[in-house]
Amino acid sequence: MPGGLSGTPKQCLQMLMNAGKEPEGGKSEGWYECADGKAKEQFWYLLARFDCYLVWSDVRAFTGFADVLSELLKALHCFQAVLHLCEAEISSKLGAGEVRVRILASPINPADINQIQGVYPVKPPLPAVGGNEMVAKIEETGSDVSQLTVGDWVIPSRSGTGTWRTYANIAEKDLIKIDNNLPLDAAATFQVNPPTAYRMLKDFVELKPGDLVVQNGANSSVGRAVIQLARNWGLRTINVIRERPDFTEIANELKALGANEVFTEKQLKEAKVKNARLALNCVGGRGTLFLIGCLGNDGIMVTYGGMSKQPIQAPTGPFIFKNIQLRGFWMSHWYTMEENKAERDVMFKELADLVRDGKFRPPNFDKFKLEDWKSAIANTINSVERKQLFVH
Amino acid sequence: MPGGLSGTPKQCLQMLMNAGKEPEGGKSEGWYECADGKAKEQFWYLLARFDCYLVWSDVRAFTGFADVLSELLKALHCFQAVLHLCEAEISSKLGAGEVRVRILASPINPADINQIQGVYPVKPPLPAVGGNEMVAKIEETGSDVSQLTVGDWVIPSRSGTGTWRTYANIAEKDLIKIDNNLPLDAAATFQVNPPTAYRMLKDFVELKPGDLVVQNGANSSVGRAVIQLARNWGLRTINVIRERPDFTEIANELKALGANEVFTEKQLKEAKVKNARLALNCVGGRGTLFLIGCLGNDGIMVTYGGMSKQPIQAPTGPFIFKNIQLRGFWMSHWYTMEENKAERDVMFKELADLVRDGKFRPPNFDKFKLEDWKSAIANTINSVERKQLFVH
Repeated sequence: MPGGLSGTPKQCLQMLMNAGKEPEGGKSEGWYECADGKAKEQFWYLLARFDCYLVWSDVRAFTGFADVLSELLKALHCFQAVLHLCEAEISSKLGAGEVRVRILASPINPADINQIQGVYPVKPPLPAVGGNEMVAKIEETGSDVSQLTVGDWVIPSRSGTGTWRTYANIAEKDLIKIDNNLPLDAAATFQVNPPTAYRMLKDFVELKPGDLVVQNGANSSVGRAVIQLARNWGLRTINVIRERPDFTEIANELKALGANEVFTEKQLKEAKVKNARLALNCVGGRGTLFLIGCLGNDGIMVTYGGMSKQPIQAPTGPFIFKNIQLRGFWMSHWYTMEENKAERDVMFKELADLVRDGKFRPPNFDKFKLEDWKSAIANTINSVERKQLFVH
Repeated sequence: MPGGLSGTPKQCLQMLMNAGKEPEGGKSEGWYECADGKAKEQFWYLLARFDCYLVWSDVRAFTGFADVLSELLKALHCFQAVLHLCEAEISSKLGAGEVRVRILASPINPADINQIQGVYPVKPPLPAVGGNEMVAKIEETGSDVSQLTVGDWVIPSRSGTGTWRTYANIAEKDLIKIDNNLPLDAAATFQVNPPTAYRMLKDFVELKPGDLVVQNGANSSVGRAVIQLARNWGLRTINVIRERPDFTEIANELKALGANEVFTEKQLKEAKVKNARLALNCVGGRGTLFLIGCLGNDGIMVTYGGMSKQPIQAPTGPFIFKNIQLRGFWMSHWYTMEENKAERDVMFKELADLVRDGKFRPPNFDKFKLEDWKSAIANTINSVERKQLFVH
């Protein structure tokens, strides 16, 4: 419905209504509310629990409208309709096992955007505070808090924390202490992308120095983390990015991080790469045919994203005759598993050492105050390349 | 190139030549030989080692012509050009560890056809005898033969045996003794399809009675074996076959074997099946999207064929959020692994028991003498549904 979705959110909703489509949830909820003027209540929530936060409303009831919704969900005015900046007093009384944190910085990740759009499988009860990643400083500890002390830096131990705010009272068990000598940018983005790269390189095939890893979406935060970890561990990487006017510039940037080769999809296809042990996919679509074509016997392709919104395509032969596997990885799920706790600390130590030694750099961020959230969100949805960080 | 490939093999080759395409192998081999009249030598081999056999020539040098070749390779006159029935004396002297067998029956499997077409990864030196599966009877044993005695029934322990013949001298280690009370049809097809179904149901996810397995190509020999084993083991199966005029007839046939449901791809999509533990794929193409959509958390799709010649398509989400896996299986490779020997005997005993108890039936075969190989091959390449068996 190109062009059909301009106007205020309410006008957009009315247009959808007029298109005669039924919401999946039935008449009692969803778009039907808009017809009799309830759109405003539906889309503006207030909540008086936190100091300063962004909340979103339930656009999730409307997944029956897949086509038009996906257009709508990309539109900034949709975010402006469902997100809302609030100020409220935070409770001064800490429960047992709780700590009060001041949030120092929190990034906007693609998963945060998807969560607001309602297309991410983690769906916190609404209204909810946006954001899942942060670095925060302990300001006060309640009773029964044993591991954390005032001044410690912490990151969340799970997704769904709601990090786009300035203060919060959080259970100690939902936080992980990290090295408070890390640069702020690195600390704020320590929970998701570098560990995703780390685990994908460690947990699927046993890689020895000199082994080859191929990946697409190599210019993503995870992609850059893969390149840097691979360089530190003596692995070779072939990196695929989209054909673009500034291809050479980006390719040089990735090579400076340690990429052995940077190819377009077409170049990868022509290069006839053989015997890669691991392929990492965050794009999907027809390009995965060529990525999989690079795998040697017993090679594995790990999928951790689907930026193209197109299905993965895979040739039949390598499954049967080369025993390849297609697997998936989700960092949030890894954190929930009790048996990973010890390994988590080992990983964090190694990553923190690399950051401190200048051997691992976080992406460059555009920095915003929470008040400027409209610009921050606009920048995020208008460019997959630029990273945004709220600094409080 | 529809219509462009009628005529004698030589005329076809000349047409390809005229199309101006270069063979992948360069000028010194392949199609270029045809231009100066060498087609006949290239395509008619003689071999004086066996009693009676079919040989094929090297059409494999020509894989550069993918499009036209795939048309040509389907044409019967191509098989008539490269296959040849011969009679020759078999050596009466057995080497150490060798046995002489009389081959009782040998099926034509799709892999045999692909091997002749040169598109199967097992490529025996040419000229070679066609066929990979058989049941044979030991007629004489050489020195150092310890496990087999005259009168035993045997099947091959590996692919590449060359079974479209009447007699052969074979190393004992390349044969497996089987129950000689089995019906001939079952025995001749005991090596590939029932074990493929057995291993795919056993080796990828742990299935409990009541668990759900979905599969496409359910009317194939492996598909029917899956249905029957699942019924015997208390598993439920949802089975996808192509939309066709005789859909109801085939569906009823499969249900009589134990299928719980038989769907077209469209019906599967609409049925919104959930929580299948295992999916089995021998088709590929867009339909695998729906097959994968049936999988629950930690579900696995095993690919063992690609009848549609289209890439597998897979949605991204289930890899990340449901931890599904795509794997592959190849029976020939399983047999080569030393550590599977003990398990092989367990499996053969269980399968033989099921056959003898009438709980597992082989497909229905059209039977041919080796002299009628042209009809047998024609039937095979003109219909994926009918099975052909050479009975000697």
